[in-house]
Amino acid sequence: MVSKNYCIQAGDTAVFNNHACFCIGTGRMGLALQQEYMDQLKKVQKEIGFSHIRGHGLFCDDMAIYHPYTDENGVTHEHYNFTYLDRVMDGYLACGLKPFLELGFMPKKMASGEQTIFYWQGNTTPPADHEKWAEMIKALLTHLIARYGREEVESWPCEVWNEPNLPGFWKDADQAAYLKLYDVSVNAVKAVLPGMRVGGPAVCGGSGCMQWIAAFLDHCRDEKVPVDFLTRHIYMGQTPSHRGRYLYHDMCDPAFSIGEAVQTRQLIDSYPQFRGMEMHITEFNTSYNPFCPTHDTVYNAALIAGLLAGLGDTCASYSYWTFGDVFEEVGVPDRPFHGGFGLLANGSIPKPTYWTFQFFSRLQGKALLKTDDCVVVEDGKGGYRGVMWNLDREEKQVCLSLPEREGKWTAVVRTVDEESGNPLKIWHDLGEPESLTADQRELLLECAHPRVESRGITAENALEMEFSLAPCAVSYFEIVPAADGFSFGYVYPGCGR
Amino acid sequence: MVSKNYCIQAGDTAVFNNHACFCIGTGRMGLALQQEYMDQLKKVQKEIGFSHIRGHGLFCDDMAIYHPYTDENGVTHEHYNFTYLDRVMDGYLACGLKPFLELGFMPKKMASGEQTIFYWQGNTTPPADHEKWAEMIKALLTHLIARYGREEVESWPCEVWNEPNLPGFWKDADQAAYLKLYDVSVNAVKAVLPGMRVGGPAVCGGSGCMQWIAAFLDHCRDEKVPVDFLTRHIYMGQTPSHRGRYLYHDMCDPAFSIGEAVQTRQLIDSYPQFRGMEMHITEFNTSYNPFCPTHDTVYNAALIAGLLAGLGDTCASYSYWTFGDVFEEVGVPDRPFHGGFGLLANGSIPKPTYWTFQFFSRLQGKALLKTDDCVVVEDGKGGYRGVMWNLDREEKQVCLSLPEREGKWTAVVRTVDEESGNPLKIWHDLGEPESLTADQRELLLECAHPRVESRGITAENALEMEFSLAPCAVSYFEIVPAADGFSFGYVYPGCGR
Amino acid sequence: MVSKNYCIQAGDTAVFNNHACFCIGTGRMGLALQQEYMDQLKKVQKEIGFSHIRGHGLFCDDMAIYHPYTDENGVTHEHYNFTYLDRVMDGYLACGLKPFLELGFMPKKMASGEQTIFYWQGNTTPPADHEKWAEMIKALLTHLIARYGREEVESWPCEVWNEPNLPGFWKDADQAAYLKLYDVSVNAVKAVLPGMRVGGPAVCGGSGCMQWIAAFLDHCRDEKVPVDFLTRHIYMGQTPSHRGRYLYHDMCDPAFSIGEAVQTRQLIDSYPQFRGMEMHITEFNTSYNPFCPTHDTVYNAALIAGLLAGLGDTCASYSYWTFGDVFEEVGVPDRPFHGGFGLLANGSIPKPTYWTFQFFSRLQGKALLKTDDCVVVEDGKGGYRGVMWNLDREEKQVCLSLPEREGKWTAVVRTVDEESGNPLKIWHDLGEPESLTADQRELLLECAHPRVESRGITAENALEMEFSLAPCAVSYFEIVPAADGFSFGYVYPGCGR
Amino acid sequence: MVSKNYCIQAGDTAVFNNHACFCIGTGRMGLALQQEYMDQLKKVQKEIGFSHIRGHGLFCDDMAIYHPYTDENGVTHEHYNFTYLDRVMDGYLACGLKPFLELGFMPKKMASGEQTIFYWQGNTTPPADHEKWAEMIKALLTHLIARYGREEVESWPCEVWNEPNLPGFWKDADQAAYLKLYDVSVNAVKAVLPGMRVGGPAVCGGSGCMQWIAAFLDHCRDEKVPVDFLTRHIYMGQTPSHRGRYLYHDMCDPAFSIGEAVQTRQLIDSYPQFRGMEMHITEFNTSYNPFCPTHDTVYNAALIAGLLAGLGDTCASYSYWTFGDVFEEVGVPDRPFHGGFGLLANGSIPKPTYWTFQFFSRLQGKALLKTDDCVVVEDGKGGYRGVMWNLDREEKQVCLSLPEREGKWTAVVRTVDEESGNPLKIWHDLGEPESLTADQRELLLECAHPRVESRGITAENALEMEFSLAPCAVSYFEIVPAADGFSFGYVYPGCGR
Repeated sequence: MVSKNYCIQAGDTAVFNNHACFCIGTGRMGLALQQEYMDQLKKVQKEIGFSHIRGHGLFCDDMAIYHPYTDENGVTHEHYNFTYLDRVMDGYLACGLKPFLELGFMPKKMASGEQTIFYWQGNTTPPADHEKWAEMIKALLTHLIARYGREEVESWPCEVWNEPNLPGFWKDADQAAYLKLYDVSVNAVKAVLPGMRVGGPAVCGGSGCMQWIAAFLDHCRDEKVPVDFLTRHIYMGQTPSHRGRYLYHDMCDPAFSIGEAVQTRQLIDSYPQFRGMEMHITEFNTSYNPFCPTHDTVYNAALIAGLLAGLGDTCASYSYWTFGDVFEEVGVPDRPFHGGFGLLANGSIPKPTYWTFQFFSRLQGKALLKTDDCVVVEDGKGGYRGVMWNLDREEKQVCLSLPEREGKWTAVVRTVDEESGNPLKIWHDLGEPESLTADQRELLLECAHPRVESRGITAENALEMEFSLAPCAVSYFEIVPAADGFSFGYVYPGCGR
Repeated sequence: MVSKNYCIQAGDTAVFNNHACFCIGTGRMGLALQQEYMDQLKKVQKEIGFSHIRGHGLFCDDMAIYHPYTDENGVTHEHYNFTYLDRVMDGYLACGLKPFLELGFMPKKMASGEQTIFYWQGNTTPPADHEKWAEMIKALLTHLIARYGREEVESWPCEVWNEPNLPGFWKDADQAAYLKLYDVSVNAVKAVLPGMRVGGPAVCGGSGCMQWIAAFLDHCRDEKVPVDFLTRHIYMGQTPSHRGRYLYHDMCDPAFSIGEAVQTRQLIDSYPQFRGMEMHITEFNTSYNPFCPTHDTVYNAALIAGLLAGLGDTCASYSYWTFGDVFEEVGVPDRPFHGGFGLLANGSIPKPTYWTFQFFSRLQGKALLKTDDCVVVEDGKGGYRGVMWNLDREEKQVCLSLPEREGKWTAVVRTVDEESGNPLKIWHDLGEPESLTADQRELLLECAHPRVESRGITAENALEMEFSLAPCAVSYFEIVPAADGFSFGYVYPGCGR
Repeated sequence: MVSKNYCIQAGDTAVFNNHACFCIGTGRMGLALQQEYMDQLKKVQKEIGFSHIRGHGLFCDDMAIYHPYTDENGVTHEHYNFTYLDRVMDGYLACGLKPFLELGFMPKKMASGEQTIFYWQGNTTPPADHEKWAEMIKALLTHLIARYGREEVESWPCEVWNEPNLPGFWKDADQAAYLKLYDVSVNAVKAVLPGMRVGGPAVCGGSGCMQWIAAFLDHCRDEKVPVDFLTRHIYMGQTPSHRGRYLYHDMCDPAFSIGEAVQTRQLIDSYPQFRGMEMHITEFNTSYNPFCPTHDTVYNAALIAGLLAGLGDTCASYSYWTFGDVFEEVGVPDRPFHGGFGLLANGSIPKPTYWTFQFFSRLQGKALLKTDDCVVVEDGKGGYRGVMWNLDREEKQVCLSLPEREGKWTAVVRTVDEESGNPLKIWHDLGEPESLTADQRELLLECAHPRVESRGITAENALEMEFSLAPCAVSYFEIVPAADGFSFGYVYPGCGR
Repeated sequence: MVSKNYCIQAGDTAVFNNHACFCIGTGRMGLALQQEYMDQLKKVQKEIGFSHIRGHGLFCDDMAIYHPYTDENGVTHEHYNFTYLDRVMDGYLACGLKPFLELGFMPKKMASGEQTIFYWQGNTTPPADHEKWAEMIKALLTHLIARYGREEVESWPCEVWNEPNLPGFWKDADQAAYLKLYDVSVNAVKAVLPGMRVGGPAVCGGSGCMQWIAAFLDHCRDEKVPVDFLTRHIYMGQTPSHRGRYLYHDMCDPAFSIGEAVQTRQLIDSYPQFRGMEMHITEFNTSYNPFCPTHDTVYNAALIAGLLAGLGDTCASYSYWTFGDVFEEVGVPDRPFHGGFGLLANGSIPKPTYWTFQFFSRLQGKALLKTDDCVVVEDGKGGYRGVMWNLDREEKQVCLSLPEREGKWTAVVRTVDEESGNPLKIWHDLGEPESLTADQRELLLECAHPRVESRGITAENALEMEFSLAPCAVSYFEIVPAADGFSFGYVYPGCGR
């Protein structure tokens, strides 16, 4: 058993920049038409509350935006169909989300080639005619402004394409072609909406990531191309090993991934023109594979806690890939737990990592303590809040001492671990059913909540509290002054005997 | 620590008649107009699902039914106003409840005296004119038939008045006056709706209870007055002791209360005419006082489990008094936990006893075992269900052995005890606030669920399962065959490390 | 047939101060616990949207606020029960309403006498102990601040008592006793919340109204008692004639009632200290009687249109008495249409006057025209809006000419008259049923909408539009530029043949 | 103006078989995952209430059912993914619908060719391996039985493929290949679920329709292949003329289409083995083209009224193609009104034909009169109901006389015509906007209801009622006895003046 003592003195502060809720990922925009998708998203927004959402497929054919029409005289009219776009954007805005636009992939009728990616066949080739690409972007923004107002649309960040450093996502991973696409795109955006913030190059880690970023920044500097922020992705999975259709990994330490962000930050800051420019991690997670069972576990929840504690010090946002398991990149999920990226399993069942985000969403006050397994803040109303996580392989005891305060306090602790808030275990105990009956789904939902424990504490010299965390546990606590009303002679009966 | 072993053999059966959900109590019909009341009732019906509801005050002035009108010529027209009645009955039926009608109390304009009971001033005197009382009953039923259909209304049981053996509820506890009221009432009902089932005398325990019942049965027999069922009340509270405005009790053993029902059954059956006639316990609970803190505890949940296991063997129903804490007999509750009767505290917060009812509502199959701390049934689909409770003052271990079955099984156990499903403890730890903030209410709701644990079991010679119950715990379990699907090579990752 | 021509020239403006939605009336605060009441209020707020709500009975015993407790030692503790208050205020705020507090009536345990008013028995006597009255006000505000925040509560206006110039509402209509109550109340409020705005004397018209107002202002001036606004009531009913239990009136012209407000304004402004002080009409309607059939008619809708056009020029608000027919002053309504005050009949069925308020709620831009039967404003987006009403006994034709604009326009006109938006007529044709079946209620709801007509207009030299209003009709119109998109060769098929 | 007199005598009856609500069409099953689709379907079910739903695409790749897996050893496992199927079927059943299964089209991985149809690319070639097709059907049914129970699934009708007499829907319109597919399919179904009812050949009109039906029946008779019902389609569009992307038609008379059903009935009945066998029109509408503006008009509503009056006399069902405009066969709709098939336009806006179905859904009693423009039935509660429609080019007056009855009656008439219940007209007057703002959508919804008129009628010798129908109008009426309650002296005030 591991033991730790954290003693916070009056006046102590810590560095903790919390952008956990700036952005969340989603597989493909066309999926936002689905009821299951919106049910999951509404739950996420009600219980966590992200500000932005980013995903692929804005211009894919299932969104049906590019809609040229050839009339009886053989004249072709460039026309755009915003039926589905409106529905998706109305849905996002209604649940408090702004889109973090990703310009991509290519409409089949505008594409220069036939290469596609994923079960849903996103075309990943450059436009046959860059002028038409630019016109489509302008028409899109013009329509959005008419519908939602200039001020609103201008506040949406905009990223050009996705992971062009991988040949599957961008034909031949052709850097020059990407830079041309970037130029055309950013100019089209700025022509309609000069205040909209645009960035790239949206690269994944590895595959020449740092070289791509440097080339991108060189290009923007040399060609005086507008750029408002830099984007890249971070995944923690190492040493993949396959079993059946599943991928298992060793995961790197959170400190390693945080280090990748620091290095990127340093590269940006090495350009005088770009020093301090915003960096957005537009995708991150443990594994990059949608059949990695780790995604569904408590371990994932604890790893992500480690990242959320540290990434905000160098990044303006980091977008967990993805909020839910309505996701079709390698096909339609055939069972509720299959290692998908989502915070929620299908059926709107929160996985453990869901709670990591909810816990961090509540850490809004002045930071008092940050370690590699703990963050504590003031709640702004005379109380304290914090998150603890356990990446050790054994139980951990933490004794926390808060600045001296007399009086009566209430502590409430919410915990996810192997036994609590872990629907994967129940599903496993049920025999891993592919289809859930309504009763099974109810059972999983019933279980998919943190354990809640309360304590009354009487502080004398210090306000002390002990925590016990099983391996992979993540705990969130609030410590607040107790109420004290007129009792009419009430004596608490305990369990009642 | 107490240890028990229960070994069920193939072919074992037990006697267990489950009428736990036939009827539920409610303070006063006029309160059913309130939104909070209906919110609570909808939750109860969705999660437990009673068939009938019984409460006081059908004819009290807040229901405004009796509505005589004197015209310009000084002629008085007997008229009835069914605005609120319709609203209440529509509400009950919409959530799947039939009323168990209680004819009472007296409209002020029809009363012979001014005696009232409760904060809400129910008039408890006989009618000044029995003819008008009979007319009102007939008009009520005629209206209900027009609105809901004869067949529906005919299926509602009907009881005459409430606890006439107490002088507060019936002036002077005048038995002869009650019998006259009964005669007039039953005749009015049968004149309109011969098939409607009518009963009495709705007496409380003590206060000459058995003498009243005998007198009532004698009267019906001798005067050939129709009677379809007998009604009485049972409360468990003994040796009341007051602290401030609260009342604390010792509670009798469930076996004692079940014995009271048996004695009443024997009295009925001693009349040849009435042998086997239905008996309804139209009110029961631990304490009869709405400021008894025991009502809010886990101990209450365990005591009621003991009653639900046994009362059905002699009674057609037993109506827990009451489903919620929207209740004004001694005034309006001034804080969420005050020892009220409700299964739910105000704010729709389930108390432990709520779960006892939910657990018993699921015990619908063939009974295999019944003891003084346990009921086990078959679920009709190849699995098992049961409830266990612990009225001992120490932890209890139960080893249950089910008829031999090979294969893989899943056990799911839901438990309420001091630490789980017990919002009273959290409220106490919060410092017993009188008004709940929205956040505090959310916290209490979050806590007010049973703990759920699952296990995968591989049965070899027998299907064995161990249970551990803290003092006052109530556990519900389901044991069902595990699923077994195509796995694509999946290996359950445990907590994930 | 009456004909009118209104020709608006470029640059024309009119005086029109629109406070139609500042406040709405409600019978008694305790009724806000009812589900039917809240259903109606939610509908009103969704479709009209008032800012404040004012009604009686804050301190009546059904709200159960005053809650003194005598302990075992005979010591009495002043205690207050805010269970129902919280529920009501939470409900109001959740639908976007702030209370316009009315301090009254008297809790029975604090009253100096037994005089009551209404079916619900509001005690209308002074406090036996003014100190306890002041303590209760302070405790109330302190609690509200803790629950909703100082800034929020401070924004709620506060009026002392109701219609003290009537002996039924205030024992003996004792002016000196009222001024004492006012002084004690305003000082209690300002002690806790100096920024809360307080006013009086809440008098009804007639019964010495202007003398009371003068005496109140004299008193505040002479005794330097704080006063932030003046309040009175206005009703239009003249020459009452009774038929059965109903009261029928001649109604005065809107100009007459607007004149009453002007005179009161002049009286206030005659005091140098109070010149320009806000005046609130805290109740107004046609008849002051809840069994006046006019309330349910289209005529009522047209009369109120006349008032809403003019009252805002002298008054900061005018609160229609009342939003709905959940109302018990003379007993519980026994049928949906009975001449009650409500904008909605029970069952949430909008009466014609409901639409008058909805129409005026949309008149928010710069006024171009105001006559005795018409208001026209700009909509701020290049279009026009207006309301017309017909108080003549014959059909009226109005030709409206708007400043010259070329191009295509769309006009949409919504109208309530005898044939449209008039559920009273359908109910009458149904034979005036006392209880509505679910189907009948659906039918009435289906009918209770304005008729909507659209026209495409091509403006050439001027933008001209003709309106035809049946007697008592109220019409709302919007005239906006037509859309003009890419049509793919579409030809509108008309009805289709 | 046309005038008609219909005089019904006591004892008159008429032949009218009403199966209007047995089945409704839907474009493609995968669209049922969309929220907009389900919103529309829920509205349809709440306000009309069909029993079954039939559409294409059960086995298309967007439903992702066929899911073979090749493991590490190169062994391929036939596996099926029921995630989306469960979601769709749960959704249908939750709104009271049973699927009318259509087995088709072909999963890409099972197909013998690459021919596809529609924007959504349904593969319309035979299976490469009929054995795998049969296995998939069996697996599907086995799964459905496990989820919904044998009895439920057995009650779903099942049709093999769609319009195989068109080469676009079935490669080369190869009749022999279809008959083979039918044999394999019906045998697979009956192997799992002998009681499931199966039929074909699902042909469209024209294109050898009657020859295909004869060949199909010959085959079933000669080869002793099971067949439980015969299916075909009927559309009314004649003489297509194109304007831009839209198709305009002359429509045949309802009598002509009803005649097509009669001929098919006669063909079936000419086989002794199949005499009286059920016939289902599994698709019908006016035009077969999803860009035919007539679909959105009142004329369409009147034509369909004509069909609903007559088709039931020979057919067990006739399924209107389709309930809504979430439909992608020729691409995603780019504006709310574009001539789509739906009863509802996107945005859940009822088109006129929606009301034709609602009106017919209420014609459930004994038929008294049927003409070519009118159906009248008894309502089973002492009143009358009927539908009238006007296919003439001028206004029509109908005088209806019902069997003699004294007393007071209430008539309620609901009408759709060019001015009422016709959102297409408002949309046109708005300038035909492509994207609707929220306000525009609200306006269209507000208008998209029938006009409702009521009348009180005093019957003397006969109960007479006059109707006036504009061209293309459809009216529904109910005539019921009026209520007659105690009035307290009420005098109906009319409009109020």
